[in-house]
Amino acid sequence: MAGKDIDKLVKLVAKLPSLGARSSRRIVLQLLQKRDTLFLPLIEALTDVANNVKTCEICGNFDTQSPCSICEDEKRKNGILCVVQDVADLWAMERVSFFKGKYHILGGILSALDGVTPEDLNIESMLARVTEEEISEVILALPATVDGQITAHYLTARLKDSNVKVSTLAQGIPMGAELDYMDEGTIQLAVNSRKVVGE
Amino acid sequence: MAGKDIDKLVKLVAKLPSLGARSSRRIVLQLLQKRDTLFLPLIEALTDVANNVKTCEICGNFDTQSPCSICEDEKRKNGILCVVQDVADLWAMERVSFFKGKYHILGGILSALDGVTPEDLNIESMLARVTEEEISEVILALPATVDGQITAHYLTARLKDSNVKVSTLAQGIPMGAELDYMDEGTIQLAVNSRKVVGE
Repeated sequence: MAGKDIDKLVKLVAKLPSLGARSSRRIVLQLLQKRDTLFLPLIEALTDVANNVKTCEICGNFDTQSPCSICEDEKRKNGILCVVQDVADLWAMERVSFFKGKYHILGGILSALDGVTPEDLNIESMLARVTEEEISEVILALPATVDGQITAHYLTARLKDSNVKVSTLAQGIPMGAELDYMDEGTIQLAVNSRKVVGE
Repeated sequence: MAGKDIDKLVKLVAKLPSLGARSSRRIVLQLLQKRDTLFLPLIEALTDVANNVKTCEICGNFDTQSPCSICEDEKRKNGILCVVQDVADLWAMERVSFFKGKYHILGGILSALDGVTPEDLNIESMLARVTEEEISEVILALPATVDGQITAHYLTARLKDSNVKVSTLAQGIPMGAELDYMDEGTIQLAVNSRKVVGE
């Protein structure tokens, strides 16, 4: 290939999630071919984010300010705290523009396999917030996996003394899905958690 | 989401080939989470390439020098010129580390549909090089598409007066392929261009 600089860049870009050697080469070529419309603006945007974005000291979100704009937002002080695994899940919740409380990022979930213990997660700071911010309900928006459910159980036990309402996301058939394509576990769960029409 | 800077970056990254909104968000999150090992090195590598890489004035390759290291390489002065569509195809040829001549990048191929005429391609500079660099053979390594073949025919006609040997890449069944999965055109071509065993 051409030049050490380009090789180095191709290797670095290939490390990004969902990219490999082939797509990385295509991206670098595209950048070189669109220098003014794509390459230079991208470097500027990356530098801006690297310089300006920090981790929120309260919830763990990424923002240009700490505390982040969600934690600072007076309108969101409704006593509901949504506990998520990571920033990606916070962004997913925010894309729905439906939830109007605050967030707390655990920084992962308990995992015997990966050796993640309660000490590795932001649990103490969550318990402190529940008391300090007069939280009335904690929504555990954790993954619907075994580890996610174990984490939810553990957090529920830890929250017992706080006298706070604890809820988890509803599980069942996702919107638009065909029963035929659903796994047995989901169907069984959806039948068990069936809702009476009109309730 | 969090912050204008991040939103802007996510939108820019999503413009890169083979990426969309979802993978772009994952990439930006990954960068923020691996600031020192990935984010800052990536910005440095991008800046290096943006500052140092230029287009070779002779062949059109991207390199930190112009003429590029391939054009400057005395060992590659073997009188064979490989004509390719773009830099991606030059890189593909170089990955094989087999071809030891020089390259010429056309900057595209003739296309009635896209309105690409001979004037849009680096054809005059190719003809000039054939004379100046005492080229004995021109390999037309162009795509095996209709437009690619039309371009090859056009270039062959233009090269007629130069008294140079013109060749194209062999066409047939690619290595490791099952006949069952090949299209009829390729099979017919492979039968027509069949080789006598032992020749």
